[in-house]
Amino acid sequence: MEKELINSTAETLSPDLLQKINAYWRAANYLSVGQLYLRHNPLLKEPLKLEHVKNMLLGHWGTTPGQNFIYTHLNRIIKQYDLSMIYVSGPGHGGPAVVAGTYLEGTHTEVYPNITQDEDGLRKLFTQFSYPGGISSHASPQTPGSIHEGGELGYSLSHSFGAVMDNPDLIVACVVGDGEAETGPLATAWHSNKFLNPLTDGTVLPILHLNGYKISNPTVLARISHEELEQLFRGYGWNPIFVEGDEPEQMHRDMAKALDYAVDRIKQVKYDARHPNGCRPRWPMIILRSPKGWTGPKEVDGYKIEDNFRSHQIPLSVSASAPAEHLQMLESWMKSYRPEELFDEKGKLIAELQALAPEGDKRMGANPHTNGGNLLRNLRLPDFRNYAVTVESPGADGEGDTHVSGRFLRDVIKENQDKRNFRIFGPDETVSNRLDAVFETTNRQWDAPIAEHDEFLAAEGSITEMLSEHQCEGWLEGYLLTGRHGLFNCYEAFIHIVDSMFNQHAKWLKTTSEISWRRRIASLNILLTSTVWRQDHNGFTHQDPGFIDHVVNKKATIVRVYLPPDANCLLSVMDHCLRSYHYVNVIVAGKHPAPQWLNMDEAVAHCTRGIGIWKFASNDQDAETDVVMACCGDVPTLETLAAVSIIREHLPDIRVRVINVVDLFKLQKSTEHTHGLNDKDYNELFTTDKPVIFAFHGYPWLVHRLTYNRANNTGMHVRGYKEEGTITTSFDMTVLNEMDRFHLVMDVIDRLPQTGSKGVYLKQLLQDKLIEHKHYININGKDMPEILNWKWKQ
Amino acid sequence: MEKELINSTAETLSPDLLQKINAYWRAANYLSVGQLYLRHNPLLKEPLKLEHVKNMLLGHWGTTPGQNFIYTHLNRIIKQYDLSMIYVSGPGHGGPAVVAGTYLEGTHTEVYPNITQDEDGLRKLFTQFSYPGGISSHASPQTPGSIHEGGELGYSLSHSFGAVMDNPDLIVACVVGDGEAETGPLATAWHSNKFLNPLTDGTVLPILHLNGYKISNPTVLARISHEELEQLFRGYGWNPIFVEGDEPEQMHRDMAKALDYAVDRIKQVKYDARHPNGCRPRWPMIILRSPKGWTGPKEVDGYKIEDNFRSHQIPLSVSASAPAEHLQMLESWMKSYRPEELFDEKGKLIAELQALAPEGDKRMGANPHTNGGNLLRNLRLPDFRNYAVTVESPGADGEGDTHVSGRFLRDVIKENQDKRNFRIFGPDETVSNRLDAVFETTNRQWDAPIAEHDEFLAAEGSITEMLSEHQCEGWLEGYLLTGRHGLFNCYEAFIHIVDSMFNQHAKWLKTTSEISWRRRIASLNILLTSTVWRQDHNGFTHQDPGFIDHVVNKKATIVRVYLPPDANCLLSVMDHCLRSYHYVNVIVAGKHPAPQWLNMDEAVAHCTRGIGIWKFASNDQDAETDVVMACCGDVPTLETLAAVSIIREHLPDIRVRVINVVDLFKLQKSTEHTHGLNDKDYNELFTTDKPVIFAFHGYPWLVHRLTYNRANNTGMHVRGYKEEGTITTSFDMTVLNEMDRFHLVMDVIDRLPQTGSKGVYLKQLLQDKLIEHKHYININGKDMPEILNWKWKQ
Repeated sequence: MEKELINSTAETLSPDLLQKINAYWRAANYLSVGQLYLRHNPLLKEPLKLEHVKNMLLGHWGTTPGQNFIYTHLNRIIKQYDLSMIYVSGPGHGGPAVVAGTYLEGTHTEVYPNITQDEDGLRKLFTQFSYPGGISSHASPQTPGSIHEGGELGYSLSHSFGAVMDNPDLIVACVVGDGEAETGPLATAWHSNKFLNPLTDGTVLPILHLNGYKISNPTVLARISHEELEQLFRGYGWNPIFVEGDEPEQMHRDMAKALDYAVDRIKQVKYDARHPNGCRPRWPMIILRSPKGWTGPKEVDGYKIEDNFRSHQIPLSVSASAPAEHLQMLESWMKSYRPEELFDEKGKLIAELQALAPEGDKRMGANPHTNGGNLLRNLRLPDFRNYAVTVESPGADGEGDTHVSGRFLRDVIKENQDKRNFRIFGPDETVSNRLDAVFETTNRQWDAPIAEHDEFLAAEGSITEMLSEHQCEGWLEGYLLTGRHGLFNCYEAFIHIVDSMFNQHAKWLKTTSEISWRRRIASLNILLTSTVWRQDHNGFTHQDPGFIDHVVNKKATIVRVYLPPDANCLLSVMDHCLRSYHYVNVIVAGKHPAPQWLNMDEAVAHCTRGIGIWKFASNDQDAETDVVMACCGDVPTLETLAAVSIIREHLPDIRVRVINVVDLFKLQKSTEHTHGLNDKDYNELFTTDKPVIFAFHGYPWLVHRLTYNRANNTGMHVRGYKEEGTITTSFDMTVLNEMDRFHLVMDVIDRLPQTGSKGVYLKQLLQDKLIEHKHYININGKDMPEILNWKWKQ
Repeated sequence: MEKELINSTAETLSPDLLQKINAYWRAANYLSVGQLYLRHNPLLKEPLKLEHVKNMLLGHWGTTPGQNFIYTHLNRIIKQYDLSMIYVSGPGHGGPAVVAGTYLEGTHTEVYPNITQDEDGLRKLFTQFSYPGGISSHASPQTPGSIHEGGELGYSLSHSFGAVMDNPDLIVACVVGDGEAETGPLATAWHSNKFLNPLTDGTVLPILHLNGYKISNPTVLARISHEELEQLFRGYGWNPIFVEGDEPEQMHRDMAKALDYAVDRIKQVKYDARHPNGCRPRWPMIILRSPKGWTGPKEVDGYKIEDNFRSHQIPLSVSASAPAEHLQMLESWMKSYRPEELFDEKGKLIAELQALAPEGDKRMGANPHTNGGNLLRNLRLPDFRNYAVTVESPGADGEGDTHVSGRFLRDVIKENQDKRNFRIFGPDETVSNRLDAVFETTNRQWDAPIAEHDEFLAAEGSITEMLSEHQCEGWLEGYLLTGRHGLFNCYEAFIHIVDSMFNQHAKWLKTTSEISWRRRIASLNILLTSTVWRQDHNGFTHQDPGFIDHVVNKKATIVRVYLPPDANCLLSVMDHCLRSYHYVNVIVAGKHPAPQWLNMDEAVAHCTRGIGIWKFASNDQDAETDVVMACCGDVPTLETLAAVSIIREHLPDIRVRVINVVDLFKLQKSTEHTHGLNDKDYNELFTTDKPVIFAFHGYPWLVHRLTYNRANNTGMHVRGYKEEGTITTSFDMTVLNEMDRFHLVMDVIDRLPQTGSKGVYLKQLLQDKLIEHKHYININGKDMPEILNWKWKQ
């Protein structure tokens, strides 16, 4: 039955429609070549001269004609079936194609009124491409209809799947380049089809574009046999439809048939979901094999260009220093598209071709999902104060900070279930990260078979888990970019897997914030737990707090970093992040039972300030401060307070000020980050001349990087993780890195000569303690009772 | 034919051998459970009591019995066919299995003489596992035979392929967990088979272990149909052999047959390669489906444990607070392996079982490739001075620094071609990064079909390119870990894709440097080019110099960062890095034509110092310095010298000192990094009180992070990349980030009141220049001639 339809000789396209589609494709190709080469004479009304050509030729031709072909055919099926479809351009530099496509359908001119649909507009359209102050060679944020910039390769499919989750009527046509297909993230993203519910989610229609070559190599997927290729994608769970060739008319016929068949299959999958037959859906995908640089120069200076890696970028050099005949070749090439048949005298696409594009919001450049901020609605948030833990006094027992926030997240899910606009992603760690309360109200969405003893799996749910940080991040980004909300929970050490994805998303946020027609989207919220200090059991490989170092290099207007010290603070921070827009919020929090410090009112006040003196732990209220003990992060806070209690017991004359930092950027100057303290406020807290002992969650140098230009910089001594770790106890992790209570007290003594001989003796006592500790854990495999049972006392 | 062999009813194992193999497996399983639970009474000679059990139960049972099964069967084929085979344990925490395997074969005791092969040794073996000061729950560096630590998942296959490249007689049995198989890097690593030459490379035998579950989810590959699974791996180009079941005797028979068949197929592939038939080889792989937690408790407290996610870690809690009957269940479980039949009275494995293990270096824990430093030989290096570019005077024209070093690398390849111990890896960028001279002597190795107009592809070659930074990094790591040398060349921005892999490798290097029996391996050399300042044409997505920020957080004994300012310096640095051991060397260098500063003698002297005053550009030899202008990186050096030339022309009275930094860690104190300058030397260079204007290649805060505790910290003003970039000109990239010559001069004027009204007027002139620049590039799409043609004049 399936075979029959796809091989049927019945024509999908009438001869007339075929010719029109081909003409539309020629127009897109013409505009693409124009973007690569011209700055004057856009319609070639006069003979082409060197001064019409740009001084610097930049851009990528290779992928472009194939993408124009796809875009043109997608327009047809959108109109024919009244689809809501968007276009994701995976191949790196297919910018000319999406710009041409959106210009021809009118959306480009709508968002850039200066780029009119006439000869002058064409000239500007061509000139701006890959030009200083112009637009880049990718489907960049500046391109209407784009939710995905193909600069770094690998994430197009994950973004597409994220976009269709909870968008049942949306189809994302995702063009995957055969270069991109070699990346790891893309290679696993094909499995996303096991996480989609045909009833409640939309459809991703992948179009694997076998263009044959990368920059200078063939691609792997273009050089394996047809049989292997088909097996591979059937093995990935897809129903592949092949369109292969280079003869335009036949390719138009084949592509039209393939797309009709794909739409039919998509409808069938949706139908089957309403009438379950026990089989997992097999979604269609298209494998399009077309020559790289299709319709461009076949040979230049004796080198094969079309269907070769040499068509990757500028296939034909045209300049004063290039062979003179190249100019003529360019003109012939452009004229081969017969622009005079496509554009009227004024330079506007002729009406019968205009009529091929969808209308209004159905145009792929105008689909509302591609400017997700337009669709974004606030979450309904329960009052986070209702989830407060009782803290009768500082040091009260805790049950694990993330565990508490799990109950809040559970109710966030519940409150927004009808809107379907909130999801949590994670690499199989939602339970391990102790957010398990969410499973009281929802499940993990999973479209593969479910066995008897599985837990929390269902065809529909707000939690999506796959053992791929790339997929979690990519799905969430796609979900946010289309106007929804979400959270990614991850082991702290392994978030580095998505360092580069974070970079690209942060850059997207910065750039879109500078584009007038782009609307703000919900923040990307990353909850990092299973942190370095509590990876004593998993060891050195699981210990890396450096993601926040990576984050702080991005634009200050985009990034936020929070390290709540206890459960109530985490609740307050989480609520704040879920309300925010257009940031990347990184929250670092503990999951193990640990002391609680602030009741909810205190937590709200503390988190609102982001940094502050903890009076209950300080004894400098009525006298000059001797030493500032600062802390940031849950374990550093615990060790600092334990150190303070030792100091207050043994050195009662020392006046200690305890400062806790929740909002990391408070440390930076207000001139560098909007959250930063001004110098006056900073100096009031940290003093300008007293020693500061700072216990920090991450690498100590990050604090120095943030505070290097503060008055008291030279007095600041930071303890943090310095790559010392192994299989040990959690307290010993702090000892190995000299951030434990005993080292902190010794740091104070070292800096305060007034501690005198009392200090000397205390130091000796503490050194003995450390030896006793090592001895104890070697014998008993756990920490000494006095460590495990230590409690803050007022 | 193939079907026949694998389905043959002929028995591979005699009944006696089958029973022995099963007994060996029981022994391994017994030792594994012992490691998870016991600290006394290792042979259960007395009734098990709570005090025999560890206080903290840590470790992962789920994957372990399956891995014991595999290890035991691999031992048989190693002996039967006299194979050189090593074992890579992909699944995260299979430590108990590899420890058990290496203990039974004797290698564990050889490297840890304290862990004897008797009852006392067993007790120590058990106690050390996941115990403070002991060994971790992975196949860690401490485990003999391991070249791969399964803490972070995704890299086992890439490591395995790297290990067999140019090792034609080696077989790596790579166990891939079905959890790990969901990661991106692993999903694309299956395609590595297209890059292997059966004649000159060895063999990877992947064993996909369908254990069924991750921490709390089923795995994707365990829940797709058998048909899909077979299609997927045939599509990946493999010849999959299935072993599925849970009944031990039948599974032993099936596994033995499968391995015999695999060895036969490997021989066939090697034979076919010597008698080519035009087909790409189809290497065998094994898909082993066995229950998670196989042979462990079936049910505990009403929960299904075996063949369920609940057997992932400790399947049965045994402690004072756990149900009392659990202790009895543990004893029964351990006794089910009948230890009394396996170990003699003294606790030693009985001789007839010992005889099943291979001998000497054939034991997987003793295979020389797994301690690659033992096999490591220095490269034969041509004299890098022979590749020097002529620099008559500073500012001479250059041809692109990496382009020059390409010729040196070409000859490194040539000189070592017979040893086959040097490879270059890259994601299709070796030409783009202008190392193309290497193709004068070698090719890209590629085992898929080659077409007429392809370039530099061959069945054998020293360059390996796939569009996956993960693969490049993973292959190179595997290559280095087995005692060879190499280089990874990459676009600077996209090296972040392997941030997390770098973390793990740096941790491996640090840990192995602390293990007495581990030998040092060759350094991991990463050449970053196509850098931020010259990504004006690709735009914002391609601009990120932050990898070095990431690198400097790792242990100072392991990491080195070099930013050579010109071609001769790059040659000197490259030579140095290729001679070094056990570091990660990051080299950041330019690929575009740019001015050259130092002749070879000067370059060697400068790079040897790592930092120094450039006298030719300084005019403070005979007078007190007014300002220090420091630079690090090729573009910052160019802009600094251009700024200096402006100052010397317009403000001739100002005494400028120019410092260039090649070795980034020179900035850090000698107490923190062995390359660091001591304070005296640092202060002599930078002064203690003069303004320092520092033009830096990367994010400016990195310099502050390295120098925060230097005397002149407050006087240091750093310019660098601050996330401002778009499609523009290369000079405009420096303007956008205020690191251009004009801003640098203005920075000097701002800090030197003595420039007086001359300074005021010069500043105004420079501001006008900046406006003129913007205007010019908007009109012309390129930089002003005075920028493009600027030359340093003495």
